[in-house]
Amino acid sequence: MSKIMSVNAGSSSLKFQLFKMPEEEVICSGVVERIGQAMGSFTMKHNGEKKVIEEPIPDHGKAVDMLLKALIDDGIVEKLEEIDAVGHRIVQGGPYFSDSAIVDDDVIAKVEELAELAPLHNPAHLVGYRAIAKKLPNVKHVFTFDTAFHQTMDAERYLYPLPYEYYTDLKVRKYGAHGTSHKYVSEQVIDMLGNPKHSRVIVCHLGNGASLSAVQDGKCIDTSMGFTPLAGVMMGGRCGSVDPSIMPYLCKKLNKTPDEILYIYNHESGMKGVSGISSDSRDVENALFNKDGKATPEQSERALLTSLLYARIVSKYIGQYYVELGGCDAIAFTAGVGENAAYLRRLIIDDCSRALSVFLDEEANNIHSSENRIISNEYSKIDVMVIPTNEEVMIARDTVRLLHLDA
Amino acid sequence: MSKIMSVNAGSSSLKFQLFKMPEEEVICSGVVERIGQAMGSFTMKHNGEKKVIEEPIPDHGKAVDMLLKALIDDGIVEKLEEIDAVGHRIVQGGPYFSDSAIVDDDVIAKVEELAELAPLHNPAHLVGYRAIAKKLPNVKHVFTFDTAFHQTMDAERYLYPLPYEYYTDLKVRKYGAHGTSHKYVSEQVIDMLGNPKHSRVIVCHLGNGASLSAVQDGKCIDTSMGFTPLAGVMMGGRCGSVDPSIMPYLCKKLNKTPDEILYIYNHESGMKGVSGISSDSRDVENALFNKDGKATPEQSERALLTSLLYARIVSKYIGQYYVELGGCDAIAFTAGVGENAAYLRRLIIDDCSRALSVFLDEEANNIHSSENRIISNEYSKIDVMVIPTNEEVMIARDTVRLLHLDA
Repeated sequence: MSKIMSVNAGSSSLKFQLFKMPEEEVICSGVVERIGQAMGSFTMKHNGEKKVIEEPIPDHGKAVDMLLKALIDDGIVEKLEEIDAVGHRIVQGGPYFSDSAIVDDDVIAKVEELAELAPLHNPAHLVGYRAIAKKLPNVKHVFTFDTAFHQTMDAERYLYPLPYEYYTDLKVRKYGAHGTSHKYVSEQVIDMLGNPKHSRVIVCHLGNGASLSAVQDGKCIDTSMGFTPLAGVMMGGRCGSVDPSIMPYLCKKLNKTPDEILYIYNHESGMKGVSGISSDSRDVENALFNKDGKATPEQSERALLTSLLYARIVSKYIGQYYVELGGCDAIAFTAGVGENAAYLRRLIIDDCSRALSVFLDEEANNIHSSENRIISNEYSKIDVMVIPTNEEVMIARDTVRLLHLDA
Repeated sequence: MSKIMSVNAGSSSLKFQLFKMPEEEVICSGVVERIGQAMGSFTMKHNGEKKVIEEPIPDHGKAVDMLLKALIDDGIVEKLEEIDAVGHRIVQGGPYFSDSAIVDDDVIAKVEELAELAPLHNPAHLVGYRAIAKKLPNVKHVFTFDTAFHQTMDAERYLYPLPYEYYTDLKVRKYGAHGTSHKYVSEQVIDMLGNPKHSRVIVCHLGNGASLSAVQDGKCIDTSMGFTPLAGVMMGGRCGSVDPSIMPYLCKKLNKTPDEILYIYNHESGMKGVSGISSDSRDVENALFNKDGKATPEQSERALLTSLLYARIVSKYIGQYYVELGGCDAIAFTAGVGENAAYLRRLIIDDCSRALSVFLDEEANNIHSSENRIISNEYSKIDVMVIPTNEEVMIARDTVRLLHLDA
């Protein structure tokens, strides 16, 4: 038995879960928010109880102090040495990491180097790592990379049709994102398929950020996010892939810089931009349906268009991956939108029904549950599933595996 | 019987074909090139003979003079009044034109207004039109728009997931391109299918520029080019759709403006950028195969990657359109690459074979011909065809139809 902390550090936040392994039991979980702001907050759930502390949290060091103190104070651990290892989420592993890695100087140097490709994330991850490493000097650390699962892509799937030296000299290629989720979900799907020797799975990770991946025999062969997490499908606030000529046109028409347009692409586009309502699919849905699920009389035309556009774009990626995989055994939905927005799942699968002979079980699709489940009907040639994602447990599993804590 | 001139005017060129209609017989054809440069050239083919004149051609007026003089001198027409009408290719018809249009002041004003969306093309088309109208004051003119065929797309297929006001105020949406070719080819395909009531056709217009379209019952429902002819698939020198974040990254790394990066996207990318050899698929092919079709011993790795990447990207669009069309009856290849590059057709169809049960007849695929032909085998669930495109005859047909010259 070992205790593994899974950590996701952002620039002003630190999420954590403490796992008992190999049982994969969550001992406690929580988040420190608004680090560095006037008033911060620490929230922890343990044994069904929620602890909230509101006070200024000037830096990640203070955040880690609060976390460790709470673990002792609440009797979750008797002494900090009970924590065997810490696994950290790292957004960008570039071309260097096709698996999680035990942290050493070389690994840290590479994550620092890759900050250029993930300026909002990689430096924040390292701040979080260093704060914990300082307080727990004898603990081993593992980094788990969002990009690692996508490193199995062939060159003809990760290269852009740009001058080749942009790839060799400037690292411009497709890296993908949400890899830990795609890996977790595809493993669950393959398990539900009965662990066949060959499998062709399309994972739709639809959250505020969203990406699809094509997984053949457990290996990622393509994914919709690209050089950055802007590319691919339409998202809550992000546009996904659009004609690259639009940016210089908008720069001129709106008298803005490329970085200003990029901000709009990342924050004011997607569901938010088209609907004019919100980047949250629930708000868009509320403009379409009453609480009883019936269409509202004043149904917003732009909310409807938003939903149709979203579904159309996702279903086009399903078509791409159907061809790339040479067919498909299962389509899995995960993450906030994918797990909860039954009406969007329905629109997406309806778009694919005629071509791919894939059909939903209407009742199963409408059930709210946190369990893995099949939502296609008996006539469907492809299983459609909802699989709640769990990136934290993947980080804990990789930490145990790499450090041989399962020995 | 009528004589119709089909014209494609560029900024320094003017291509023409004179048709005898309704027979669709080409009486003569030719091109005036390097207008406004130190030395221009006029070339005309008639009755199997080729006439070439090299002399300075300062403007489109002079180009038209040369053309009309040659028609008289060579006895192609006895007098210019024999030319019943002139049809002109116009690249950008924006949201205004879903069909060709008889030219009047309103039509001209709209084409001028749309110059903003096609700065290299629309103004040049008008220069050519005005030069001809001046010399043939009594002739009627028709404009045929590259975008018209794509105007049947639904909003959820032409909208980008950007702030909605970019669409309403700045006209940012998908317009498509090569529409006249997509229309011609899809009509030929439907004819070859025996004119069924319902049909689902994917047209692959692969030239130096390239686009795919999904045609349902003769109507375009989606196409790969976007706001501009840069979007969609990889082309000779154009990158097609790439992660929109790459442009601001390259601006910073290379210290270039968005317009400079856009130039690279349009001219130094695609086959040229990846292969480092050429934007011409024949040059890339020559780095792969000997004249006997066998792989060269020193086969260029980047040329191979170029071909695989190109095929992969095109086949992914076929997958998209397969889903959108709810299946597919025929896939048609056209334009320079599509009509001639058998090895690329093979790579593309091979990518789709397993998922879509589409198979080439190897021998038929390797035949060089200028005829419409089927290149799939008897086991294929989808007919694969090669259809030499003919935008000029479509312009002549529309000119006859709109001016009721067939009455």
